Amino acid sequence: MNRAAEFASVAAYDAVRRRTLELSAPLSAEDCCAQSMPDASPVKWHLAHTTWFFETFILERFEPGFRPFHPAFRVLFNSYYNGIGAKHPRPQRGLLTRPSLDEVLAYRAQVDERIARLMAERGADAQLTPLLELGLHHEQQHQELILTDVKHLLAQNPLFPAYATEPFAAAPPAAPLAWVPFEGGLVDIGHASPGFCFDNELPRHREYLQPYQLASRLVTNGEFLQFVEDGGYTTPALWLSEGWDAVSTQQWEHPFYWRRGDDGGWYEFTLHGLVPLDLERPATHLSLYEADAYAQWTGARLPTEAEWEHAAASHAIETGALHPAAASGAGLAQLYGQCWQWTSSSYGPYPGFAPAPGAIGEYNGKFMLNQYVLRGSSCATPAGHARPSYRNFFPAHARWQFTGLRLARQGG
Amino acid sequence: MNRAAEFASVAAYDAVRRRTLELSAPLSAEDCCAQSMPDASPVKWHLAHTTWFFETFILERFEPGFRPFHPAFRVLFNSYYNGIGAKHPRPQRGLLTRPSLDEVLAYRAQVDERIARLMAERGADAQLTPLLELGLHHEQQHQELILTDVKHLLAQNPLFPAYATEPFAAAPPAAPLAWVPFEGGLVDIGHASPGFCFDNELPRHREYLQPYQLASRLVTNGEFLQFVEDGGYTTPALWLSEGWDAVSTQQWEHPFYWRRGDDGGWYEFTLHGLVPLDLERPATHLSLYEADAYAQWTGARLPTEAEWEHAAASHAIETGALHPAAASGAGLAQLYGQCWQWTSSSYGPYPGFAPAPGAIGEYNGKFMLNQYVLRGSSCATPAGHARPSYRNFFPAHARWQFTGLRLARQGG
Amino acid sequence: MNRAAEFASVAAYDAVRRRTLELSAPLSAEDCCAQSMPDASPVKWHLAHTTWFFETFILERFEPGFRPFHPAFRVLFNSYYNGIGAKHPRPQRGLLTRPSLDEVLAYRAQVDERIARLMAERGADAQLTPLLELGLHHEQQHQELILTDVKHLLAQNPLFPAYATEPFAAAPPAAPLAWVPFEGGLVDIGHASPGFCFDNELPRHREYLQPYQLASRLVTNGEFLQFVEDGGYTTPALWLSEGWDAVSTQQWEHPFYWRRGDDGGWYEFTLHGLVPLDLERPATHLSLYEADAYAQWTGARLPTEAEWEHAAASHAIETGALHPAAASGAGLAQLYGQCWQWTSSSYGPYPGFAPAPGAIGEYNGKFMLNQYVLRGSSCATPAGHARPSYRNFFPAHARWQFTGLRLARQGG
Amino acid sequence: MNRAAEFASVAAYDAVRRRTLELSAPLSAEDCCAQSMPDASPVKWHLAHTTWFFETFILERFEPGFRPFHPAFRVLFNSYYNGIGAKHPRPQRGLLTRPSLDEVLAYRAQVDERIARLMAERGADAQLTPLLELGLHHEQQHQELILTDVKHLLAQNPLFPAYATEPFAAAPPAAPLAWVPFEGGLVDIGHASPGFCFDNELPRHREYLQPYQLASRLVTNGEFLQFVEDGGYTTPALWLSEGWDAVSTQQWEHPFYWRRGDDGGWYEFTLHGLVPLDLERPATHLSLYEADAYAQWTGARLPTEAEWEHAAASHAIETGALHPAAASGAGLAQLYGQCWQWTSSSYGPYPGFAPAPGAIGEYNGKFMLNQYVLRGSSCATPAGHARPSYRNFFPAHARWQFTGLRLARQGG
Repeated sequence: MNRAAEFASVAAYDAVRRRTLELSAPLSAEDCCAQSMPDASPVKWHLAHTTWFFETFILERFEPGFRPFHPAFRVLFNSYYNGIGAKHPRPQRGLLTRPSLDEVLAYRAQVDERIARLMAERGADAQLTPLLELGLHHEQQHQELILTDVKHLLAQNPLFPAYATEPFAAAPPAAPLAWVPFEGGLVDIGHASPGFCFDNELPRHREYLQPYQLASRLVTNGEFLQFVEDGGYTTPALWLSEGWDAVSTQQWEHPFYWRRGDDGGWYEFTLHGLVPLDLERPATHLSLYEADAYAQWTGARLPTEAEWEHAAASHAIETGALHPAAASGAGLAQLYGQCWQWTSSSYGPYPGFAPAPGAIGEYNGKFMLNQYVLRGSSCATPAGHARPSYRNFFPAHARWQFTGLRLARQGG
Repeated sequence: MNRAAEFASVAAYDAVRRRTLELSAPLSAEDCCAQSMPDASPVKWHLAHTTWFFETFILERFEPGFRPFHPAFRVLFNSYYNGIGAKHPRPQRGLLTRPSLDEVLAYRAQVDERIARLMAERGADAQLTPLLELGLHHEQQHQELILTDVKHLLAQNPLFPAYATEPFAAAPPAAPLAWVPFEGGLVDIGHASPGFCFDNELPRHREYLQPYQLASRLVTNGEFLQFVEDGGYTTPALWLSEGWDAVSTQQWEHPFYWRRGDDGGWYEFTLHGLVPLDLERPATHLSLYEADAYAQWTGARLPTEAEWEHAAASHAIETGALHPAAASGAGLAQLYGQCWQWTSSSYGPYPGFAPAPGAIGEYNGKFMLNQYVLRGSSCATPAGHARPSYRNFFPAHARWQFTGLRLARQGG
Repeated sequence: MNRAAEFASVAAYDAVRRRTLELSAPLSAEDCCAQSMPDASPVKWHLAHTTWFFETFILERFEPGFRPFHPAFRVLFNSYYNGIGAKHPRPQRGLLTRPSLDEVLAYRAQVDERIARLMAERGADAQLTPLLELGLHHEQQHQELILTDVKHLLAQNPLFPAYATEPFAAAPPAAPLAWVPFEGGLVDIGHASPGFCFDNELPRHREYLQPYQLASRLVTNGEFLQFVEDGGYTTPALWLSEGWDAVSTQQWEHPFYWRRGDDGGWYEFTLHGLVPLDLERPATHLSLYEADAYAQWTGARLPTEAEWEHAAASHAIETGALHPAAASGAGLAQLYGQCWQWTSSSYGPYPGFAPAPGAIGEYNGKFMLNQYVLRGSSCATPAGHARPSYRNFFPAHARWQFTGLRLARQGG
Repeated sequence: MNRAAEFASVAAYDAVRRRTLELSAPLSAEDCCAQSMPDASPVKWHLAHTTWFFETFILERFEPGFRPFHPAFRVLFNSYYNGIGAKHPRPQRGLLTRPSLDEVLAYRAQVDERIARLMAERGADAQLTPLLELGLHHEQQHQELILTDVKHLLAQNPLFPAYATEPFAAAPPAAPLAWVPFEGGLVDIGHASPGFCFDNELPRHREYLQPYQLASRLVTNGEFLQFVEDGGYTTPALWLSEGWDAVSTQQWEHPFYWRRGDDGGWYEFTLHGLVPLDLERPATHLSLYEADAYAQWTGARLPTEAEWEHAAASHAIETGALHPAAASGAGLAQLYGQCWQWTSSSYGPYPGFAPAPGAIGEYNGKFMLNQYVLRGSSCATPAGHARPSYRNFFPAHARWQFTGLRLARQGG
């Protein structure tokens, strides 16, 4: 039995679905309902939409005598699948006080039960298995969004509420930054193992890389603070034109969740609440604009996604907590589990890319424009979700994800 | 003991405060937290702000050893009083998932207890009484907003949830429309009785009125439907220029809460849910633009606020339910308790108007521009809140209040 | 022969039409084509639209065998008459580089010739005369707009070009401000003489006024500067709520055309170019927000339009130059020819107001909402255009007209 | 003497500068002043800015005793060089009625004279020559923009004025579409010849290409019309997500300059005015969204920029007229001189890219984000400006350039 089929087991299904509930457990029904910006969704909506995915793409197709949990949910919890039909307007997801959180939890329970029955009846079916597996990886993506979206919501509140009540300890000193060289040449890029991957990681194909070097770890808050204090946010020459527009018109003066205290000190809003800025931890919640400007300031650059993947191919995959931790150890550190790492690569199709037919094919391909690839994984990425060929993508201005920065430069 | 002091009694205080809780009782914490547009506030915010009013304008000033319930609430629940200081941004009230509804209810209970103690200690004090009374009338205004704001929120939901579960019966035929004549001449306008009034109803002063006539009742849905079917929304000549802009750019085709069913019939969203449009009940949720265009279409006009007040002076004040009812009986009907009635009068100061000194003076005066006066009261207005001199006011485009239309014309 | 018929004479027609050309003479074709904001029109558009008015409302109706100068002009130069049909979008008037200025001048010449022929053929015809007269008063309104619109355009140019090359001399000291009392009582308001007036000045009707006082002259730059220096633009308590919004969001710190020089001194952009702020001349280009805030600061208020008209009824009407002059002499000065004077009166219909039937009836009535009345006339108002009953109107935020401020207060 | 130095000769300078004047010759001063959208500049501004480039980057640096033509022009005609200092706001370029067109022509003449003197004095100087050459290529880019920007302006005018009075003949049938195969493998990309290139064409570097095929010619209007009639603009599955947003919110139904006639036929606005849509000529003024959707509809895709450059390397470079012509002949046709060809390649730095130091380095590098590369050249591109390695770039939504579409597909 291969890994894909294993992931599509009843136990795997239960584990992933349960994890989503655990993530929402510290939140009240009110917390789960509100939407702080069009890009972020309410937690309740995530709970329902991930369920909708199984109901719409699996039960509707395979369940004998299928009847929807609620006929209106097909529209209410459709995210962006034009092939499915109408969608509730994204910016109004936070106005759905009904169905209540309890009704959504009942929706989850009922769909879970029906999926379990279907799995029992059909077994590791060649049609069902890939869709189940896609549904679980899809749910894991929303698990990360639950944390980043609720963080954004809580950050709007002047009370700075904490998601997690555990204390947030100061990090040990970060390992010093070193440059790790790679020879380049003709390399193969894209998913290779037999396990699951998204369609955008295929086909595996050949690319030519010049010799390059990667920084051994992510840029820290302490390093980024030097950029701030050196006038980084007031020096147009360091910025891409579109980045400078954002800095000027939106009055950016520091990373997204940094705050100046009344005492003159720097603080950072985290899922543990507002804490003193920890200089040893990685700078995070950076836009691509800020990542690129910082790289310019140092004379380095961002890696391409192929450079990153080639370098990361053989490294162990770590899982993080609710905030990025400081780097430790030698070699290429912090590839996974701390911050997604901006690359200079625009998100586009690999040569020969073909999305799946039908609505499910809207998953990745239609977003391949004006977005940039991030590699690795973050502290909010669920265990088992990351891999070397994984291509995360966001617009260059996005700041509400756990996005950080690893430097690169030319030369072997 | 005059009426004012009576209203400021412990029993009156308790009754008004309890009524607010009763109005929020059918709603979940989620319902109470969401904000459907910047003009509408969450129910939880109304519950807190009305409490803030007593805490800030009474306890903070009169309570010995005053300590706030929560230091952040002074900013969080300040609506628009620049004299008090900073304000949480109005469009972001719906993001305040904390404090929770339970904490806000605890806030209410504690402030109520402290107010009761203060009233017991000071008695019908000349300083305290007017502020208590203002606070209660203020709370009654928010009771009406609780209903109109939550109606707006529920209307955004494709499930069309009902606030009230009671059935909504068809109305009996509305009384026929008659014209009631008034001679005009020199009349006195403004509050006269010893009871409470807002500062904007004073000073009582003289105005000269030409002979005029008022319609005996409000315009009904049936009558307004004729306007719709006669091309009212596609005939620019009927509309004020700014009204036609709204119609054109926002694609208005009918009153705000009317909906066309899949069966081709007309429906109306009410606090009882979506119901077939009742042709005998008053047309409501009209903007001033729509009210004026309808009047143009009939060859009549809107009354001025002085015409309305002069006509209404000696009539009984009725209280309504959750939706306007059909007119019955002879004479000038439906003055109170069904729909606020648009007048052609811009909201401005009466001759010699002077607001109270200090922050409390921001209550009315600073809004005397680009708003229009509505007279009477609506089905959502609390009992005891209406009076002939009452001046409600909203911008001409506002459609989410229970706003209707009584015709007027020249001549005795 | 009454004044109306006189104004509709060939000589009067020629004089008004010629004056429009004189006003555009100092401008290049480029100056005449550009549009600096949607509210302001290009001079070339004014030249064409005033001609369109005669062509559309007179020639099209009365000229035997009428053929338009150019079939597209009916749409291109229609301002806002829905009864005439489609309109070129207002914000795009500045993109009409064709027809050229020369073609528009040829359009004017041809229409003038045809109007002259029609006047010769029909004489002082009862149908033709009122329309001719209306067309000439309409053209005079656009003469004022030519000056205010081109001033706005030139003010956008960092070179601060002057419209007029004549030197701009310092004014003599303004007369001291005195209060002129009026008894009030029942007064008649509205146009009374046999001469021309717009429909919005009718019907003449009775109003009741309380005793009041008017300032003998307009507020000067020197006085307004004290308001600025006293923190007028940073004190919310002085402002109407909507005015404070404008101040805060648009960062208003002083009147519209005032500029701080690099030398720290105050300058004002005028049709004579940028000149040192003349403290003796009236403050002008004020919004109603600023006028009201200034009045609040002094403890006075703005007059109502009835107060103004009653006071001004018997005064001589003066004509100004390209910028307001300082007040001289005793009594009620500067009623006309310097700055339009904001009143607190919302622009609405007089009791019994009825617009003309057809498209021409769109002239005034449809704008009677959310605008405020200004009385008097300005330095840019053509000779012969002003009268005591004249009702000018603009939105409260408008700052590009020659709008100033005369104080009023209660009491005889 | 190499080509670069040759281009920097007095004769080359004169020829390029004269060509700019020839392009503006058919236009009036009014035509040259207006600005139809923030992305497009007035012709007068182009005339001045290209002159400013020589004055600022050459005269200011090299001319002994340099004095500016006008001290304000340094700011007025700075496009986007933060290193030079302040800039007149881009959306307000059309409000600069002063300096007049005549003054700008005098500015050109004076700077030309001073440049000629400098060239005479210094000869083919190693510092001067690259800047002169850059200035001339810069001017050629603006020559193309003069045509596309004035086309956009004229298209806003309901009179549909023609830039060129020459008749516009129907094209002969386009050559049939064939697929031209390429083997791919390791190829070298980037500028190679000794002649001039922009910094973004360097360094020449190695890339790996899979086997691919290119269409022998551009997509024609006739072919694109089939896409329109097949519901291309109403089928979300064909579009990138961002493209579908544009289609939906901006109601796109056909290419930018296509118009439906009252006779039901298709027309196209061209520099020759409004003409019947010529089915044999290339579809042009396409956004990348439309190009990509068309390719999806056919089952093909857009080429990458490397695929295009590798294929085009050895082909002759043709120059076009004022509108794209139909394809003729065999082999890879219409590479140059008809329409810029969208590629799927995001505009980014080549490996090792380094912009020039100082303000001149803002020319290309800072725009390397959220723009896409177009290859070839258009009918509006000046003779001598195109080359195989040339990288044009625009945002995916841009439609006002002569942008067309060549299909590609996988396989040798």
